[in-house]
Amino acid sequence: MQQEKEILSLTLEDISTTEKLYRTKLINSLAGIRQVALIGTKSKEGQENVAIFNSLIHLGAHPPLFGFISRPDSVERDTLRNIKETGIYTLNYIHSKWIKKAHQTSARYTKETSEFETTGLNPEYLENCFAPFVKEAEIKIEMKFQQILDIEINNTKMIIGRIEQIHIPKNRLAEDGLVKPFDLLLSGGLDAYYSSDFLEQLPYAKP
Amino acid sequence: MQQEKEILSLTLEDISTTEKLYRTKLINSLAGIRQVALIGTKSKEGQENVAIFNSLIHLGAHPPLFGFISRPDSVERDTLRNIKETGIYTLNYIHSKWIKKAHQTSARYTKETSEFETTGLNPEYLENCFAPFVKEAEIKIEMKFQQILDIEINNTKMIIGRIEQIHIPKNRLAEDGLVKPFDLLLSGGLDAYYSSDFLEQLPYAKP
Repeated sequence: MQQEKEILSLTLEDISTTEKLYRTKLINSLAGIRQVALIGTKSKEGQENVAIFNSLIHLGAHPPLFGFISRPDSVERDTLRNIKETGIYTLNYIHSKWIKKAHQTSARYTKETSEFETTGLNPEYLENCFAPFVKEAEIKIEMKFQQILDIEINNTKMIIGRIEQIHIPKNRLAEDGLVKPFDLLLSGGLDAYYSSDFLEQLPYAKP
Repeated sequence: MQQEKEILSLTLEDISTTEKLYRTKLINSLAGIRQVALIGTKSKEGQENVAIFNSLIHLGAHPPLFGFISRPDSVERDTLRNIKETGIYTLNYIHSKWIKKAHQTSARYTKETSEFETTGLNPEYLENCFAPFVKEAEIKIEMKFQQILDIEINNTKMIIGRIEQIHIPKNRLAEDGLVKPFDLLLSGGLDAYYSSDFLEQLPYAKP
């Protein structure tokens, strides 16, 4: 006799009245697994900053635009201020080998603290990019700030930037342009980390 | 003697002048791996629709809000029209076993065609939800449309919805609220699919 899986049905009321930490983890992880990136910035005064994000959004390829979400109560305030002040930031993909260093950048350090120093990750300056890259990252992207979109319904913001330059090992780029994400770190929710396995690449679907 | 990895540096100019399909794949996949979902809708006239998306965005937990990106040139027009007309849609996570059926929903079918019929996926109606769920999905979410945000910089839209109800097997929900995404399908770019392996869950980072 086959045993039926027990299905929970949680209503908006259930979700809204549950304990805050539980709700945050539930809704964050329910949104699914996403690749994480370190955003590197530098203040006008030269203070370096690096912080982990998992809300990178593809907005378009021509021009090449990515967005990410910034929340009012988050540790990302230094990142956001630096981006607005200087217009430049970097995206640095995280190798699953240095997961702990990357996660540690999510701690609430003071404005005067460089997460590079506290986590042992190394800043790297490439060409004329004002913001630091993370030396350990294999894929590094220089971004130019374009605009902030206010999401008034819950007081969050989407920060939109344009790709200025991509630094990528040749062996991570397939002939058709596909970036190969082997060994890169993904996250689900706030604190659970994953790696990925390639399954298959399918042809363009036709009716 | 250690061989240095060859690093490619692609400028905005390089990206903008490359062949269109290559550029689309490059920028899409560069944005990273993301969990895919099937969005289920139904028109006022009763025509069912289901389409694959990989742009789900967590916007907040209280109220529980998710966004997704809709592009002007995409096959998502039926989905978007149904959502605007009826205010209700469903998110259905995809098991990696039925990857081909899910991918096939991305084909450009006519408005009169139900992707349920053409792909062999089955619609399912739960409680009073107007839009169909995908019966095969283990995690199903009923969404209520909240607003559309115009991203004018490249003529895309973010569709924001509120979670009304979550249907989830009890064995996928950890004690702390974390959703366990084992065997669910992820994608990178337009056509490459991945599965995930759990690495670890780390404690809240403190300075």
